[in-house]
Amino acid sequence: MKLFDRMSIFDHIIAGDLPANFVHRDDICVAFMDINPISPGHVLVVPRLSVATLAELPAEVCSHLLLLGRRIGQAQQRGLGSAAQHFLLNDGRAASQTVPHVHLHVVPRYAHDRWRTLAKMTAHIALLGRLPKMTPERLARLKAQAEAIAAAMT
Amino acid sequence: MKLFDRMSIFDHIIAGDLPANFVHRDDICVAFMDINPISPGHVLVVPRLSVATLAELPAEVCSHLLLLGRRIGQAQQRGLGSAAQHFLLNDGRAASQTVPHVHLHVVPRYAHDRWRTLAKMTAHIALLGRLPKMTPERLARLKAQAEAIAAAMT
Repeated sequence: MKLFDRMSIFDHIIAGDLPANFVHRDDICVAFMDINPISPGHVLVVPRLSVATLAELPAEVCSHLLLLGRRIGQAQQRGLGSAAQHFLLNDGRAASQTVPHVHLHVVPRYAHDRWRTLAKMTAHIALLGRLPKMTPERLARLKAQAEAIAAAMT
Repeated sequence: MKLFDRMSIFDHIIAGDLPANFVHRDDICVAFMDINPISPGHVLVVPRLSVATLAELPAEVCSHLLLLGRRIGQAQQRGLGSAAQHFLLNDGRAASQTVPHVHLHVVPRYAHDRWRTLAKMTAHIALLGRLPKMTPERLARLKAQAEAIAAAMT
């Protein structure tokens, strides 16, 4: 654990030192539930390569990141009943990137969720990095959503 | 102009029937200034292939879209002095997608612009599809930004 301070929280999740609800793992990327979701089913797609910005990723990893994100969006629709999704990549500290390890947000949207999502997104940006209290109920919900998405992956 | 109603506003921009401030054009994608920018220098990257959602695009076009977006983010930093950028793709009508033709937003962020951007982003989502009045000053600004970004493309 000597390198702890130099590793991002995502490195620890990838290494298995910190828990997460995975929906997908392959040689290039992993995908797991955001513990501070903008909407129910919000997933983070993270390259295993630990770099802060998109510019530092090999082109083929960039491609895989978006193509995997796309598959997850489709799996959210099938598994959770969402109607559409946002793909968001905050690329750099000045763009609200809180973890210095590239990650693509896949944020599902549901019918008639506009004002709720707007409020959550505003809070997300404004409260930058504030994490919610993890209750057993929240954890169980994230686990169930991860299982539904993973089961719907093609 | 028989097909006008079936063509997206982006089809008309690509065809040259409607004006836009281009920063890049290639065989697969074009990129031009968003006329309702969240921040100064906001660019849209649009595949020539006219489909509404990411799921309908060939994988290689998805890859090109993100890799071109990445180059534009770097050109915004060099050409406009931005510090970071958001990549945002609203994928489907329920995800605030107002033009039914895939497009990737590349939204530059500047030092100390957090509250201004938050306000603009909130307005962007809430006022969905409302376009600003195009004054000569606004048009001149978009043109100058496009030229600065295009000149910084590598």
